[in-house]
Amino acid sequence: MRVGVFLSLLIYGKNPCKEILATDKPIIRAYLEKGINDDLLKILQKKEVEIIVLPKNDFYGKFTGNHQGIVFEVPDYKFLSLEEVLKKYPASDKPVFLMLDGITDPHNLGAIIRSAEAAGIKAIIIPKNRSVGITGTVAKVASGSLEYMDLVEVTNLAQTIEKLKKMNFWIVGTDMIAPKTYSDIDVSSALCVIIGSEGKGISRLLKETADYLVNIPMVGKVNSLNASVSAGIIIFEILKKKGL
Amino acid sequence: MRVGVFLSLLIYGKNPCKEILATDKPIIRAYLEKGINDDLLKILQKKEVEIIVLPKNDFYGKFTGNHQGIVFEVPDYKFLSLEEVLKKYPASDKPVFLMLDGITDPHNLGAIIRSAEAAGIKAIIIPKNRSVGITGTVAKVASGSLEYMDLVEVTNLAQTIEKLKKMNFWIVGTDMIAPKTYSDIDVSSALCVIIGSEGKGISRLLKETADYLVNIPMVGKVNSLNASVSAGIIIFEILKKKGL
Repeated sequence: MRVGVFLSLLIYGKNPCKEILATDKPIIRAYLEKGINDDLLKILQKKEVEIIVLPKNDFYGKFTGNHQGIVFEVPDYKFLSLEEVLKKYPASDKPVFLMLDGITDPHNLGAIIRSAEAAGIKAIIIPKNRSVGITGTVAKVASGSLEYMDLVEVTNLAQTIEKLKKMNFWIVGTDMIAPKTYSDIDVSSALCVIIGSEGKGISRLLKETADYLVNIPMVGKVNSLNASVSAGIIIFEILKKKGL
Repeated sequence: MRVGVFLSLLIYGKNPCKEILATDKPIIRAYLEKGINDDLLKILQKKEVEIIVLPKNDFYGKFTGNHQGIVFEVPDYKFLSLEEVLKKYPASDKPVFLMLDGITDPHNLGAIIRSAEAAGIKAIIIPKNRSVGITGTVAKVASGSLEYMDLVEVTNLAQTIEKLKKMNFWIVGTDMIAPKTYSDIDVSSALCVIIGSEGKGISRLLKETADYLVNIPMVGKVNSLNASVSAGIIIFEILKKKGL
């Protein structure tokens, strides 16, 4: 059983639902009473939310309380603390974590969560202040995988690395001009792989804190990759090397 | 020198520029005369187009003709024919081509072009009628790599595969339940790798036409990848195996 990371909440009534719509918060499903809120229907269709329109009787059978003919089902996402994931996945089990440095695009974050889940990554560490947050776009692009991925929000990435090192994790940074390649990653111990943003890569401080740096060799003229593609290439190489 | 694939065109005047804006056609750069078209400026900023505002004298010095204070620089993208790319990259050179089946998301197409360019893929074959086309979003996500990638538009993917086979290309399809994995791809001959859409994968006909199918082994619960991430994982594995 999952430890309380993904629960869904029901939001009842016009104003609470409108508040959700005004943000980019994810909506899993919208239940509407037939004939109610045609304008809202258009907005929801535009947002590509799954809509379930029910006849009045069915609606009142399913939902009690002051719903005004509209109920949203939204994810109640809870982050784990670093201590919690370290307890859940001790270094002796050789888990692989990802740390994202400066990924600000929700499509990238969503696609990274999706790839990570498929590749058996155990946790993704994101910075509290300089990240994108778990928005509706993130949830949508993550395509259901958000539910199975432990996310950790931390205030300081460098301090988190030091803590992970003390717990016997090896820290692998990514850098365009690293002497090693992503095929050189040693998968025989617990790992935390730092993925940087497309423009800036990972920060100088994190590069210095990492145990070693790897690059993805390229042969083209432009030679830059979408951050979610780089992450996918590296984590599937790790999966392959682990022989899982 | 590139063979006439990427040229830029200048579009002069209010109405022609507005027509471009009304579509999702890519705009490389917008030149505006200072003080002209504040509404347009807002639209361009929203589209994240590079905007160069010039004082009247500079504008009239740079552009002659009936420009009305507005000039767009747009890419003039030309597709190559299959025959042209086969002449340019004969099978004896062991080139790798990609064929995209049903990729309809411009972010995916852009990211695939970007990865392909970085991995030394020589050409990308897309279907004329069931693809996304080279829109502004594609060009933006491709991040400059579009200029260096030969794209081929064909009316029939299956017939194109037959033509490639006759020219000694090996055709590799992708399938969730293929017996081989992407690490088993034989890179000792000319290759065309077919990448499918996320929802549907590659079509049954193309699977049957391929010489063999490969999958990407996964260990998660959701186990699906963004199409551009799958493509990146496969083509970087090919690059690694080629030892370039």
